[in-house]
Amino acid sequence: MNATSTSELMNTLGSQAKAASALMAKAGAATKVKALRELARLLRENVAPLQVENAKDLERARAAGLAEPMVDRLKLTPKVLETCAEGCEQLAAMPDIIGEIMGMKQQPSGIRVGQMRVPIGVFGMIYESRPNVTIEAASLSIKSGNACILRGGSEAIDSNRALAALVQQALVAAGLPADAVQLVPTTDRAAVGQLIAMPQYVDVIIPRGGKGLIERISAEAKVPVIKHLDGNCHTYVDDPCDIAMAVKVADNAKTQKYSPCNATESLLVARGVASEFLPKIGAVYAAKGVEMRGCPEALAILADVPGASTRPATEQDWAEEYLAPVVSVKIVDGVDEAIAHINRYSSHHTEAILTTDHIHAQRFLREVDSASVMVNASTRFADGFEYGLGAEIGISTDKFHARGPVGVEGLTSLKYVVLGEGEIRT
Amino acid sequence: MNATSTSELMNTLGSQAKAASALMAKAGAATKVKALRELARLLRENVAPLQVENAKDLERARAAGLAEPMVDRLKLTPKVLETCAEGCEQLAAMPDIIGEIMGMKQQPSGIRVGQMRVPIGVFGMIYESRPNVTIEAASLSIKSGNACILRGGSEAIDSNRALAALVQQALVAAGLPADAVQLVPTTDRAAVGQLIAMPQYVDVIIPRGGKGLIERISAEAKVPVIKHLDGNCHTYVDDPCDIAMAVKVADNAKTQKYSPCNATESLLVARGVASEFLPKIGAVYAAKGVEMRGCPEALAILADVPGASTRPATEQDWAEEYLAPVVSVKIVDGVDEAIAHINRYSSHHTEAILTTDHIHAQRFLREVDSASVMVNASTRFADGFEYGLGAEIGISTDKFHARGPVGVEGLTSLKYVVLGEGEIRT
Repeated sequence: MNATSTSELMNTLGSQAKAASALMAKAGAATKVKALRELARLLRENVAPLQVENAKDLERARAAGLAEPMVDRLKLTPKVLETCAEGCEQLAAMPDIIGEIMGMKQQPSGIRVGQMRVPIGVFGMIYESRPNVTIEAASLSIKSGNACILRGGSEAIDSNRALAALVQQALVAAGLPADAVQLVPTTDRAAVGQLIAMPQYVDVIIPRGGKGLIERISAEAKVPVIKHLDGNCHTYVDDPCDIAMAVKVADNAKTQKYSPCNATESLLVARGVASEFLPKIGAVYAAKGVEMRGCPEALAILADVPGASTRPATEQDWAEEYLAPVVSVKIVDGVDEAIAHINRYSSHHTEAILTTDHIHAQRFLREVDSASVMVNASTRFADGFEYGLGAEIGISTDKFHARGPVGVEGLTSLKYVVLGEGEIRT
Repeated sequence: MNATSTSELMNTLGSQAKAASALMAKAGAATKVKALRELARLLRENVAPLQVENAKDLERARAAGLAEPMVDRLKLTPKVLETCAEGCEQLAAMPDIIGEIMGMKQQPSGIRVGQMRVPIGVFGMIYESRPNVTIEAASLSIKSGNACILRGGSEAIDSNRALAALVQQALVAAGLPADAVQLVPTTDRAAVGQLIAMPQYVDVIIPRGGKGLIERISAEAKVPVIKHLDGNCHTYVDDPCDIAMAVKVADNAKTQKYSPCNATESLLVARGVASEFLPKIGAVYAAKGVEMRGCPEALAILADVPGASTRPATEQDWAEEYLAPVVSVKIVDGVDEAIAHINRYSSHHTEAILTTDHIHAQRFLREVDSASVMVNASTRFADGFEYGLGAEIGISTDKFHARGPVGVEGLTSLKYVVLGEGEIRT
């Protein structure tokens, strides 16, 4: 596809999305529920045909020599599709927050002023690999009354086309515009450049993928971006704390899964509990093959743990998102140093304090400058499902607009509503 | 000042602001109140010295041949300073919303999840002309627990320096860091380019001034911008409506003051009430010297109004922000055409419907895509004071983050708070 035709294509998608967004914004709650339930039904009914399309992507991926774990991420198994269908039904069952009016208060002039929750308008989503993201994004877009333009990875283009066709079928069945969810049909890379530079049509861009992709999009976008950069998450073991609980939670936060962005990458330990806590967690990590990169004081204690794989932490380690069986370990004076260290090195994603001290917990919650701050819980909980958002379109590490897991609410905006009886300004 | 030293200066201001923002974020409500009250006291106590500094700006402005209305906007009269002092006291008296926790709910895993309101961090404000904006921005920054870097216009540099010195004196008196409010001390234009491109220090930029300034800053900024572009506000006179009230409100919306962004620029009139309403409002506008640029149908009715200054509206008129005694007038079929016209031509600032019909009112509120939507009230009410925000730092015509008048809340962000008792993810 040449540059002119890609540009024309994207303009067409944009203007269609904009037109559809006006209809979506005034769609009734029941209509959106109908579309979501219909989509769930279609996903279940079309497992076989979806797998036929998916097989084309899998074949192409294997022919290109993609590693098997990467091929796995592309697979639309019956289980993956059932999870997608259930996700649609869960969203359908949630209360509709569009049109909600908050804080209506009478002012001295007599007017009453409140805020109404409305959709953002049109969002563009750019993602890689897993085709089920197509359904997650589409269903959140429908529930939130937005229109969206989806740009999946070229490796999943056949699966994404088949899924997007079902989404449009569901929209039409509910009396909603098919253009409310459009997939960019070409794998031309120029389409991304166009999508992020159409402020007349697109209100926000949501990239999901590697850090490189997100940094490039943020730098070049002409519209706001909901960014999710890295997750260098910390767990701080305070003095005083419940040592047994701290071992259990620090274990889970690091080892329950290594690849998610909410896994703990750095363990801070208050000096007062280090000699009791570190040998215990060290033994757990050693048994699971987790390498520990420590400050000299931590290494001295860990030296006595049988089978522990340790090495000195460098300055770079404190800022690193490993996404692997590696953890950095630092002994700190207490809550002050822990907060200062986190605010310096963290990527502002998710941090937890394990403590029994009320004041320390309150200070940690208030002073740690991250999207999610936790007391006595595993950082692995930081996601939209666990937070009760129904689904998430991404996790924002920005402070602007949406912070942390972004669900339906993050895709909305508040406008002021003023009700009067003929008041004038004097 | 050469390029290197401006760059060094801005880096220093940035890193100082960032450091101060951490202290402001944890400052107690009483401390911030103390700083605001002290600032009010200092403003009242220093009227004479402030006027000495202000006189330098006024002299320079007159020497440069600035028009007298522009010179007027620069003036720090005792009345202007008293208004500034009262503004600080009003903010001091408002509840402190920092640290507020909302929506805390237990999830199936056992963790409780809510959101805590926290300051954004550091904002940069770029403004022109009126030096009292320095106090408005500083006081909002203090109340919201942020740090800020203020860049006023070169024409007010002496006044701004004197005001900023008082702000820092008030901060220090309350035990807060002086760097929480810093004025860019140079009038070098390169400083603006630096200020909007320091994502490591500055979280958001708020420009206040002409459309050209705001468009340039939005295009070049490397951080989010809270934009206020133009205010092409509409008043729609519905069928049915209370004609006498409609005349009163449409008069006020257009003529109470011509220069504000919330003044009505375009009047839409339902055909069913046009022959009764238009001659009445036409006579009011004619008496006040307001030129009416109408569609052919409106012009035919207005032709019978004695003394009316009319001419045909061009396509450009529908999109125009006059800020002058000019109004465009269009007859429409009813609420559908009114909504469609507004969503096409409006700048998404503020629109009002004057009606007695409940369904029409509800549809207008929901479907008009603007920052403020009103029923039976003058568009002139769209501002932070009238909305009960205590003060406003600007009016956002964007949908992202803050929409409409931006007060303390618009300068905050919500982070997730998770409280557990040792829960782990399974």
